[in-house]
Amino acid sequence: MANYTAPVKDLQFLLHDILEMSVSGMDGFDELDRDFTGAVLEEAGKVASGVLAPLNAVGDVEGCVLENGVVRTPKGFKAAFATMRDGGWTGLDCDPEYGGQGMPYVLASAVGEMFVSANMAFNMYQGLTHGAYSAIHAHASEALKAKFLPKMVSCEWTGTMNLTEPHCGTDLGLMRTKAEPQADGSYKITGTKIFISAGEHDLSENIIHLVLAKIVGGPEGIKGVSLFIVPKFNVNDDGSLGSRNGVAIGKLEEKMGIHGNSTCVMNFEGATGYLVGEAHKGMRAMFTMMNEARLGVGLQGYAQAEAAYQHAVAYAKDRLQGRAVTGAANPKGPADPIIVHPDIRRSLMDQKSFVEGARALTLWGAMQIDRAHKAGDAQADAMISLLTPVIKGFQTDKGFEMCVAAQQVFGGHGYIEETGASQFVRDARIAMIYEGANGVQALDLVGRKIGQDGGKAMMALIDMLKTFIKENEGDAEFKAQFLDPLKEASKGLQGAAMYFVQAGMKNPNDALAGSTDFLHLLGHVCLGYMWARMAKSARAALAEGRGDASFYQAKIVTGRHYMTRQLPAVAMHLARITAGGETVMGLTEDQF
Amino acid sequence: MANYTAPVKDLQFLLHDILEMSVSGMDGFDELDRDFTGAVLEEAGKVASGVLAPLNAVGDVEGCVLENGVVRTPKGFKAAFATMRDGGWTGLDCDPEYGGQGMPYVLASAVGEMFVSANMAFNMYQGLTHGAYSAIHAHASEALKAKFLPKMVSCEWTGTMNLTEPHCGTDLGLMRTKAEPQADGSYKITGTKIFISAGEHDLSENIIHLVLAKIVGGPEGIKGVSLFIVPKFNVNDDGSLGSRNGVAIGKLEEKMGIHGNSTCVMNFEGATGYLVGEAHKGMRAMFTMMNEARLGVGLQGYAQAEAAYQHAVAYAKDRLQGRAVTGAANPKGPADPIIVHPDIRRSLMDQKSFVEGARALTLWGAMQIDRAHKAGDAQADAMISLLTPVIKGFQTDKGFEMCVAAQQVFGGHGYIEETGASQFVRDARIAMIYEGANGVQALDLVGRKIGQDGGKAMMALIDMLKTFIKENEGDAEFKAQFLDPLKEASKGLQGAAMYFVQAGMKNPNDALAGSTDFLHLLGHVCLGYMWARMAKSARAALAEGRGDASFYQAKIVTGRHYMTRQLPAVAMHLARITAGGETVMGLTEDQF
Repeated sequence: MANYTAPVKDLQFLLHDILEMSVSGMDGFDELDRDFTGAVLEEAGKVASGVLAPLNAVGDVEGCVLENGVVRTPKGFKAAFATMRDGGWTGLDCDPEYGGQGMPYVLASAVGEMFVSANMAFNMYQGLTHGAYSAIHAHASEALKAKFLPKMVSCEWTGTMNLTEPHCGTDLGLMRTKAEPQADGSYKITGTKIFISAGEHDLSENIIHLVLAKIVGGPEGIKGVSLFIVPKFNVNDDGSLGSRNGVAIGKLEEKMGIHGNSTCVMNFEGATGYLVGEAHKGMRAMFTMMNEARLGVGLQGYAQAEAAYQHAVAYAKDRLQGRAVTGAANPKGPADPIIVHPDIRRSLMDQKSFVEGARALTLWGAMQIDRAHKAGDAQADAMISLLTPVIKGFQTDKGFEMCVAAQQVFGGHGYIEETGASQFVRDARIAMIYEGANGVQALDLVGRKIGQDGGKAMMALIDMLKTFIKENEGDAEFKAQFLDPLKEASKGLQGAAMYFVQAGMKNPNDALAGSTDFLHLLGHVCLGYMWARMAKSARAALAEGRGDASFYQAKIVTGRHYMTRQLPAVAMHLARITAGGETVMGLTEDQF
Repeated sequence: MANYTAPVKDLQFLLHDILEMSVSGMDGFDELDRDFTGAVLEEAGKVASGVLAPLNAVGDVEGCVLENGVVRTPKGFKAAFATMRDGGWTGLDCDPEYGGQGMPYVLASAVGEMFVSANMAFNMYQGLTHGAYSAIHAHASEALKAKFLPKMVSCEWTGTMNLTEPHCGTDLGLMRTKAEPQADGSYKITGTKIFISAGEHDLSENIIHLVLAKIVGGPEGIKGVSLFIVPKFNVNDDGSLGSRNGVAIGKLEEKMGIHGNSTCVMNFEGATGYLVGEAHKGMRAMFTMMNEARLGVGLQGYAQAEAAYQHAVAYAKDRLQGRAVTGAANPKGPADPIIVHPDIRRSLMDQKSFVEGARALTLWGAMQIDRAHKAGDAQADAMISLLTPVIKGFQTDKGFEMCVAAQQVFGGHGYIEETGASQFVRDARIAMIYEGANGVQALDLVGRKIGQDGGKAMMALIDMLKTFIKENEGDAEFKAQFLDPLKEASKGLQGAAMYFVQAGMKNPNDALAGSTDFLHLLGHVCLGYMWARMAKSARAALAEGRGDASFYQAKIVTGRHYMTRQLPAVAMHLARITAGGETVMGLTEDQF
C-alpha cells in the first residue's frame, strides 16, 4: 500500500521561482503570493494524502458495481466526494458568478496534480464535471448556464462527455446519434455512446451529460455535429429535480485500470436535450475545452509517475538486498538497501527528472492558458495550442514508462497486486489513450500545429530557446551543463521541422511516419528547456545563499541527469524521422 | 478475443535458411530436414491455435482458485494439459532414456514459441517442469533420476523452482530455509518460499519441488546453499505415491497477469527432501539450467509481442476510421481501415521488426546451446553465456513495450478487458521480472559477462560482426542498407565496451550506471546482425527466383525498418553510458 506526500515545495518553487505568478502582472495575481498559495497547497495536500490516497487501492480492488441500472462507487468514495465539495475544491478556478472561487488555472492545476497522484480514478468524477462546466460556460445560453452551472461548480451535479460511439472514436464524422428538434426548442436525442467516464454513479444527485449528436436533416459528416446538454433527471424551472430523462446506462465496462471510475455505455432513447451554442458547430464547442482537457490528461501522466516514484523510493530505501559495489553502506545490517545499487538509482533518477520536468512544463502550459484566457494574450494561446499535443502525448507515454520503471524497482513484489505498484501502471495506461490517443496527438502536432499560421508558433518556440541560450551563455558552467545540450537538442528540433516542410510537400506519408517521434523529440526539447530554467533559478538561489541549499543542489543534479541521459533521445528521434515513410509504408496489407 | 496463427513459415525460414540445422553437422540433425520440422511445427501449431489459444482469455478471467489447500486451475486447463501430454509435447527435447524424444533444443524452442504465444500462463506448468527436469538430469544421482524423471518428462508429475523467500530474492545468501540431515541420508526441509509458479494445482498427480535450502551447520551465505528435491507426495520405491509430504501452499497470490498460472507461497514444515548434486553447491546446480531458463523467458518476451501483434494487425485491417492522407483506400466504405494511417503502420512495423529479429536471435541462441551441450562446443557455450542476459533482458523489455504498442492500436477498445489487448500487456510484464529482474541481467552482463575470460566472448562477438561485414560488403545495395548501419552500431558497441574497461577500473559505479543501457545497446546490435543475415538470405532467394517472393521481399523491408528505425537507439544508449555515474549517484538518499 502506498503513502503519498504532497510535493508542496516543488510546486511553490515552480509557481514563484520559475513562473513568478504573483508578479506576472496578471489581473488579480498579485494577491496570490507565496504565503497564499502555500496555504492552499498545504490544505489540498492534506486532503490528497489523508482522504484520497487511502481510497486509491480500495477503488482498484472493489471497483464500481452495476445493480439494477445504478452504479455503486467503491466504499468511502461518497464521503470523500463530500469532503471535496465542502472544501470548495471542486470550483477552485470556476467563475465566481456561478459559485466558483475564481482562482487561476495554474493554481488549480497544481492542486489537481496532488488529487490525481493520490487517486486518479476518484478525481475523474470532478475532472469530467469541470470539463463539462467549461464547455457550457463558454458556449451555452445564459439561461442554460444559470440553470446548470451552480450545481456543477459545487459538484452537487456531476458532468460527462459523450463523444465516442461503438463504430467511431477518432473519426466523429461517422456519428449516428441523432437529435430531433421539438416544438419547445428542445431536442430528442437517440443513440448509443461508449466509454463514458462517470456516466452513471451514486456520488451526485444529477448527472449532466454533454452529448454530441447530429440534428436530423443537417449537413453530412463532422459538419453536422451539434452539442447538447442531456440531464439524467430533468430540471424544473425552480431548479428542483423533475422526472427521469430518457438516458440510462447500458453496460459497465471491465477495464485494465481506473476501476474506481465507472466507464459506461450510455443509451439515449428520445432523451430531452438542450442545444449548446450554435447548431452544427458542436465540434468547435468541444475544441474550446480540448486544450484544457488534454493538459489535464498530460498532468495525469506525470502525476501517476510521481505517485509511483514516491512508492518506489520508499521501497528502495527499505528493502535490503546485496551490497553496494563500492563497499557496504549498511555494514551492521544483513544487506544494504537497494537504493545503493547504480541501476536502481539510475531508474529513480530517470523517474525523478521526468516528473519534475513535466511538472514544470505543465504548470508553464497552464500559465499560458491563464494568459490566453484572462489577458487575451494571442502568443500564449498559439504556444499552448502548439504544445498541447506534446503535453498530452509525450507526458502520458513517458509517465506510463516511468510507472513501469517504478514497478520494476519492486522486483517480484511489484507484480503482486497487494503492493500497489501494478495499479499505477494500469491506471496510467488510460492516459495514453483517452482525450485523443497519442497517435492522434502526434498527427495533430505534425499534420496541423507545426504548420499553423505559417509555422508562427513553432518559430516563436525556437526563438524562445535561442533567446534563452543567448541571454545566459555568459556562465561557462551553466552553458556546458545545460545550454550546450539544449542547443544541440534544439538543432535537432529545427532539423526535424525542416524535414517535415520538405518531405511533407512531396509525400505526406513521409512526414506522418515520423509524427510520434517528433512528438517525443519536441517533448524532450521542452523538458530540457524547463530544466535549464529551473537550474538557472537554483544556481541563483545557491549563489545568493537563500533558501534550502540541499533542495537547489538536488534540482541541479536532477536537471543534469535529464540533460545527459534523456536529451540524447533527440538524435535518435531525428534519425527515425528523416528515415521517412519508405519502410513504414513499404508492405502490402497482406504482408503484415 | 484474439485468434492465433502459428508462424510456421517464419520458423522454417530460420531453422533451415538461416541456421541450416539439418546440414549443421550436428549428430542426428541430418534427419531433421525441412519436411520433418515442417510436420512437427504444423502439428504443434494446431495445438497452439486450436487448444491453447482459446483458453488464454479463460485463464485470465477465471484465474486459479484456492479452496481447502487445493488450487483449481481454470476450466479447460486439465483437458488441454492432457492433450499436451498425449501428444508427447512435454518431453520433446528430453532424454530418451527417461521417455523423452531427444529432439534438439532449437526445435523445442520453435515449438515452445507457439505454445507461449497461444497461452503463456498455461505453458508455464510444463515450462517449470522442464526446468526442474534439466536440473535433476544434470546433477542428481542415478537413483533420483530414475525415480523422478520419467513421470516429469511426461508431465504426469510437474515441477517447480523454490528460490525466493519473503526477505530475499536476488540476494539468495540471506536465505533462511534450512535442511536437517536425517539418518537415512534424506533431509528435513523447513522454511517459507514465495512466488512459486505452479506451486500447487490440479493438473498433475504429484508436484516435484526443487528447493534451495541451507544445510544446518554449513557455510554462511551463498556458499552454504544446497539443492533438494521435495515431492508433494512421497514416492515409494515401486514408483507409486505414498503419504503426503510436509509441504503445503500458504497463499495464492493476486497478480497483475498470468492469472491462469498459480503463484504460491509454499510452506515447508520438516518436509522430506533429497539432496541434488553436492552439498553446498546448490547455486552451481541452479546456474546450469539458468541459461536455458533465461532464454525461455526471453522467448516469452517476443512470443507475447507476436501474439499481441497478430491481434493488432487483425484489428487495424478491420477497424474503419478516417481516410488515408494520400486519398481514400476504401472509397465505397464509410472510412478506411486504420492500417492505412502512417502512425499505425509505423507501430505495426516496429512490432513486426522486433518480433522477427528477436525470434532469430532466440533460435540462434538455442542452437548455440545445442552446440554447447550436444557437441561440446566451448565457443558456442561462451557466446550463449554472454548473450543470455541480452536475450532475457532486452527481449522482455522490448516485448512488453511492443505489447503496449499493440494495445495502443485499439484505442479505447484496448483498455477494455474484453478485447484481450490488455492481457498480453499484463502477462508480458512478468517476464521482465522473474528469472532475475532485468536490472540483474544488466548487472550480470556488465559486471561479469563482458569481462569474463579476459573478454574473450565479447571479442569473439565483435569479430563475428566484423567478419560478416567484410565477407558481404561486395554487394553495394546490401552494404548501404544493412552493413553500414550494422558497422556503425558495432562501433557504438566497441565504444561502450571500451568505456566500461576504463571507467570500471576507476569507479565501478560509472560502469554499472550504464548497465541497462548497455543491455539494450547490445540487444540492438544483435538484432541488427540477425536482420542482416536474414536479409542476405532473402536477397539470395529472390536473386535465384526460389520460394515465395512476397515473403522474402517483406523480410527485406522489415529488416530495413529495423536498421533505420531501431539501430539509431545505439547512439543514444552510448551517450547515456559514457555520461557515467555522476548524476546517477549524485544525490544523497534523503534528496530522493
